[in-house]
Amino acid sequence: MKNVQITYELFLELIKYHLLESDADTEKIKKELTNKIDALVMRELYSKYKTAPTEEEKEKARKEYLDRRGVPDSFRW
Amino acid sequence: MKNVQITYELFLELIKYHLLESDADTEKIKKELTNKIDALVMRELYSKYKTAPTEEEKEKARKEYLDRRGVPDSFRW
Repeated sequence: MKNVQITYELFLELIKYHLLESDADTEKIKKELTNKIDALVMRELYSKYKTAPTEEEKEKARKEYLDRRGVPDSFRW
Repeated sequence: MKNVQITYELFLELIKYHLLESDADTEKIKKELTNKIDALVMRELYSKYKTAPTEEEKEKARKEYLDRRGVPDSFRW
């Protein structure tokens, strides 16, 4: 099973929230988890782009990647 | 800032709990977080043992490590 790396800070907030029932920064937890999902999706798209078997799929992954990154059309290769 | 590795399964439960507000396995979350803390403490103790400047500190870390591992006295080196 693969692992996911999270920041030490997020880990501490999760401990506070789930184990210590003390005041955890839930906004931080949400934000960091969201960022992490985003990073994983980006990596997946990049990997799809790099390994796509056809030019068409490659182009599709490249476009989706750039859309998500928010790269304007005029700056694309 | 250093990172902490968690399992993909734990990550998914955390997403469910914090972002999707769907039924997350909170027992699993607690258990996995507890195991992770334990693993980090064990590594810390082992590292202390390996890098202790004095024999006394080394022995203390070794003992604590073995106690936590639950190694019976008769099996120790």
